[in-house]
Amino acid sequence: MSPKITTELLKHLRQVMKNPRYVQEPVQAYIVPSGDAHQSEYIAPCDCRRAFISGFDGSAGTAIVTEQHAAMWTDGRYFLQAAHQMDSNWTLMKMGLKDTPTQEDWLVSVLPEGSRVGVDPFIIPADQWKRMSKVLRSAGHDLVPVKENLIDTIWTDCPQRPCKPLITLDLSYTGVTWRDKIVALRSKMAERKVMWFVVTALDEVAWLFNLRGSDVEYNPVFFAYSVIGMNTIRLFIDGDRMMDPAVREHLQLDSTLEPEFKIQVLPYGSILSELQAVGAGLSPKEKVWLSDKASYALTEAIPKAYRYLTPYTPICIAKAVKNAAETEGMRRAHIKDAVALCELFNWLEKEVPKGTVTEIVAADKAEEFRSQQKDFVELSFATISSTGPNGAIIHYKPVPETNRTLSANEIYLLDSGAQYKDGTTDVTRTMHFGTPSAYEKECFTYVLKGHIAVSAAIFPNGTKGHLLDSFARSALWDCGLDYLHGTGHGVGSFLNVHEGPCGISYKTFADEPLEAGMIVSDEPGYYEDGSFGIRIENVVLVIPAETKYNFKNRGSLTFEPLTLVPIQTKMIDVNLLTEKERNWVNEYHQKCREVVGAELERQGRHEALRWLLRETEPLARVQ
Amino acid sequence: MSPKITTELLKHLRQVMKNPRYVQEPVQAYIVPSGDAHQSEYIAPCDCRRAFISGFDGSAGTAIVTEQHAAMWTDGRYFLQAAHQMDSNWTLMKMGLKDTPTQEDWLVSVLPEGSRVGVDPFIIPADQWKRMSKVLRSAGHDLVPVKENLIDTIWTDCPQRPCKPLITLDLSYTGVTWRDKIVALRSKMAERKVMWFVVTALDEVAWLFNLRGSDVEYNPVFFAYSVIGMNTIRLFIDGDRMMDPAVREHLQLDSTLEPEFKIQVLPYGSILSELQAVGAGLSPKEKVWLSDKASYALTEAIPKAYRYLTPYTPICIAKAVKNAAETEGMRRAHIKDAVALCELFNWLEKEVPKGTVTEIVAADKAEEFRSQQKDFVELSFATISSTGPNGAIIHYKPVPETNRTLSANEIYLLDSGAQYKDGTTDVTRTMHFGTPSAYEKECFTYVLKGHIAVSAAIFPNGTKGHLLDSFARSALWDCGLDYLHGTGHGVGSFLNVHEGPCGISYKTFADEPLEAGMIVSDEPGYYEDGSFGIRIENVVLVIPAETKYNFKNRGSLTFEPLTLVPIQTKMIDVNLLTEKERNWVNEYHQKCREVVGAELERQGRHEALRWLLRETEPLARVQ
Repeated sequence: MSPKITTELLKHLRQVMKNPRYVQEPVQAYIVPSGDAHQSEYIAPCDCRRAFISGFDGSAGTAIVTEQHAAMWTDGRYFLQAAHQMDSNWTLMKMGLKDTPTQEDWLVSVLPEGSRVGVDPFIIPADQWKRMSKVLRSAGHDLVPVKENLIDTIWTDCPQRPCKPLITLDLSYTGVTWRDKIVALRSKMAERKVMWFVVTALDEVAWLFNLRGSDVEYNPVFFAYSVIGMNTIRLFIDGDRMMDPAVREHLQLDSTLEPEFKIQVLPYGSILSELQAVGAGLSPKEKVWLSDKASYALTEAIPKAYRYLTPYTPICIAKAVKNAAETEGMRRAHIKDAVALCELFNWLEKEVPKGTVTEIVAADKAEEFRSQQKDFVELSFATISSTGPNGAIIHYKPVPETNRTLSANEIYLLDSGAQYKDGTTDVTRTMHFGTPSAYEKECFTYVLKGHIAVSAAIFPNGTKGHLLDSFARSALWDCGLDYLHGTGHGVGSFLNVHEGPCGISYKTFADEPLEAGMIVSDEPGYYEDGSFGIRIENVVLVIPAETKYNFKNRGSLTFEPLTLVPIQTKMIDVNLLTEKERNWVNEYHQKCREVVGAELERQGRHEALRWLLRETEPLARVQ
Repeated sequence: MSPKITTELLKHLRQVMKNPRYVQEPVQAYIVPSGDAHQSEYIAPCDCRRAFISGFDGSAGTAIVTEQHAAMWTDGRYFLQAAHQMDSNWTLMKMGLKDTPTQEDWLVSVLPEGSRVGVDPFIIPADQWKRMSKVLRSAGHDLVPVKENLIDTIWTDCPQRPCKPLITLDLSYTGVTWRDKIVALRSKMAERKVMWFVVTALDEVAWLFNLRGSDVEYNPVFFAYSVIGMNTIRLFIDGDRMMDPAVREHLQLDSTLEPEFKIQVLPYGSILSELQAVGAGLSPKEKVWLSDKASYALTEAIPKAYRYLTPYTPICIAKAVKNAAETEGMRRAHIKDAVALCELFNWLEKEVPKGTVTEIVAADKAEEFRSQQKDFVELSFATISSTGPNGAIIHYKPVPETNRTLSANEIYLLDSGAQYKDGTTDVTRTMHFGTPSAYEKECFTYVLKGHIAVSAAIFPNGTKGHLLDSFARSALWDCGLDYLHGTGHGVGSFLNVHEGPCGISYKTFADEPLEAGMIVSDEPGYYEDGSFGIRIENVVLVIPAETKYNFKNRGSLTFEPLTLVPIQTKMIDVNLLTEKERNWVNEYHQKCREVVGAELERQGRHEALRWLLRETEPLARVQ
């Protein structure tokens, strides 16, 4: 990896920062955040502006360029990568270290008095704008919105914004028509006494209209906004995608409909002016509902007194609770995914000893097996295929420079998943193709105990996910071990593999209470720098639990694993398991046998079936 | 309980709300919060203004009186009591119920346009003022500070503010001199670049100067403020308490001292004008540190740009970490407390069958035994002595109207504690003087499992208490049971029995990470309305834990019980315990035997010693 040479680029950027064609008055600093106009986690190439200007292409980072300086804030995952990818024009600001200033404090320390700090108002979330603007203002500076994105003005070979065809999902996949989703949304709006709802997150637009796209890699979404009124529906979307007869039929664009279900299709770029028109026409007490993470530009389109901001939108919350059709789809997707992984692990067992299987080969093979399954669309994230010390890099992705060959002497960690038309998967298995050491088995078993503690937990209806996080760590903590990431995230249904508003983490960001139908991952781990990584991840469905008593009639919940891939018993030190834990493993493996075994049989994959049967032999009781 | 007749009082209050002698312009509403000027949890009789105006004397509640209405907001613990104590002039606002408006929303709904809402700026915390003021302002009203407390103007027989003698604590109790505490505080101030620190909480003033008082029942504090500069110390305190030679000597008031340790004693009432003078004399960049819960009046004394507000003060955090002298004091206090409780339980066993022991008699007897112990000062809170259905009322305090007789047929719950000059105690034991039912034993055992899960937990340095809360509930959750309160609170060292900044609760209020030397309670429970209550509470000390490994060199922590009172084995269903849990009980009881047994022996309390020995027989293994 050699750093990107950015001297000319920065010179050019500093010119446009003063160019009256783009800025009313010169800006003394320009902020380049990571995101897109929808605050997406995964972004399209045309939105990788921070990577373009700096060379650093990790998933998180904010660049700030002043007349004298160029600085990059990123977190511990990316210190090394950022240092490698950026040239000496850049200062790396290591977030989380004591002496690293915040962006605001740094700006205050380097800017001349009365400076103007520019940012694209479509990229910066409103809550972040507010925080930053306050600090700058109190130091005598101004945060100003710069309408034209200044990076775009100098990015001559910027890729086009993707505009790929849409997929329509019928009732067998979604369980609820888009009309019924609109009705439910309007009833939530009526409850809160708001007249308008602005859909800004891409997965929320996709979910609402039962459409999918492929504008962003790994995320089956498409660039669009929507504004829902009590009697109107506006969809802001570009290209000839609305010419597709299947889409027109799906959205009933050519049917005679009650006016409140008639969808008005408008250009993607017209969202701001349309929203400003809505904002200008509001009568007193007519509120407009937005996510508090919506962009500053869209938030400002609505006069302050008329805004109704919440951290989670009603769509985000409704989307998290999967209905029967979605749940069944997720089950099917996970069975197919398990078939692919049984094939892969069987293949790896035979091939690894030959010394020709690298991390990249293994990742490709995993994709190949998955792509053979029905309704496969694409991967749901970049496969983490890591062996030995690479396994300890939590967000590792094999590239030629780091690509390591799998062997019988190292632990192999595979964290991978796919998008199927009926569901999204995400599974991690950690295995050894030789003989694991007693220490490796010990660590693996603690992680397994944590995985089981969450998976088998029974807890009251309404419990927030962060209250379960310590269950996953307790066995590790007892021995002085731990892992430095959360335990689980929400998973979409043929949507983003990471979604809100629920999760399992020691971080107590406002997570919504768990309820039956929600789907999260359960993925504790243990990582030893320079040596190995262990993680055991299932996607699990929140289901009602039967309990002996029922305090205050609240009801109880527990989890049902949707992922049905054997957990390598060779890695387990059975002596460290309680009887309850041993039974859990055996019952889990019994279910893998029955459910995935039947599918392997049906698909005629006999060798993988034999592998499955061998790998799911019950653990013997140890005295 | 008959309600207080408030018609005349309210008439009178409404008059002063318009009287130019007290208000510049009439106020259309007046808020009467619960607290005192120090945001104390326990308050002196002269500060019980809300109880005076309404009749409702629960520990939490806010009254608002307008020209037409009088309304009282309180929480679920007090719905019944408030309804009984208030006459028909008052509307009860049940907090936590869906349809109950917030105070702000209610004010907006009842007030005429452009109203002024008055409140005593010394009683309302700054953060609450800010929240309330914002909502009122956006609805066209004004929140205004009313200097003279309007309740005090109509409260003709208001008790005097207490002004009791002080107790000086020498190094053997405190471990650190007040001078060294000032030095440490100033170094924290220097770290944050603040020039002044304002001590507003009563327990923080007491801790800082190694003084105690008895102005507030159960809390060994005295009314005072302090303002610490880098070179000055001001103590605001009334009465002739500073004439006491012991106090003068302790504070070195008559010694020749370096000027930066010279304490300037000022009248309690002069804090505002002195602080305003400090505020007026600040140079740029000179910040003043205040708790964000300090009163609006004191916060406003410092111009906004000069304020440095934090949720927890450096004193609050330093006070929470007990030094060796304090820890040893707490140990001694808990041994003495255990002696008193062994005496009590032995006495109860003999007396309860006679049918003459009521809840009040038992509480008084507990106090009597405690008062026989060395350095006993007073109780640390109102004893919760409750039998049968009264045990299910979590904040129960026996009064003649509810006083129930202990019997061999009901569970008895005693939650009590004391202030000794060397430490503060708080212990709950639940017992049966006859034969508990299988169900009662089952519930008790789940609570015990939760208690042990917290007490024996091993967790990394820096873990926040809320991450341990679920450990206390897991056994109950497995059976569909739970309890609706937190698991633990910080405990002062001969100070308030409830103190911040740490605790163990499902509520994720910003609690500070646990560290060795902190002291918290571990008190899970189970309550069945109308039937019984179970709680098992020890005060525990955070100590370093030895672990097999040491991830990232972070070190691990666990708890050591300071409370050493037998847990009634008769109530335990041994079949429900794991071997580890059984061992925990046996080792705990062994320690009670050794430590408390030796003290009982030393005090010649042979009958109580025999009771202790019998009650700490090891649990047998069950197959």
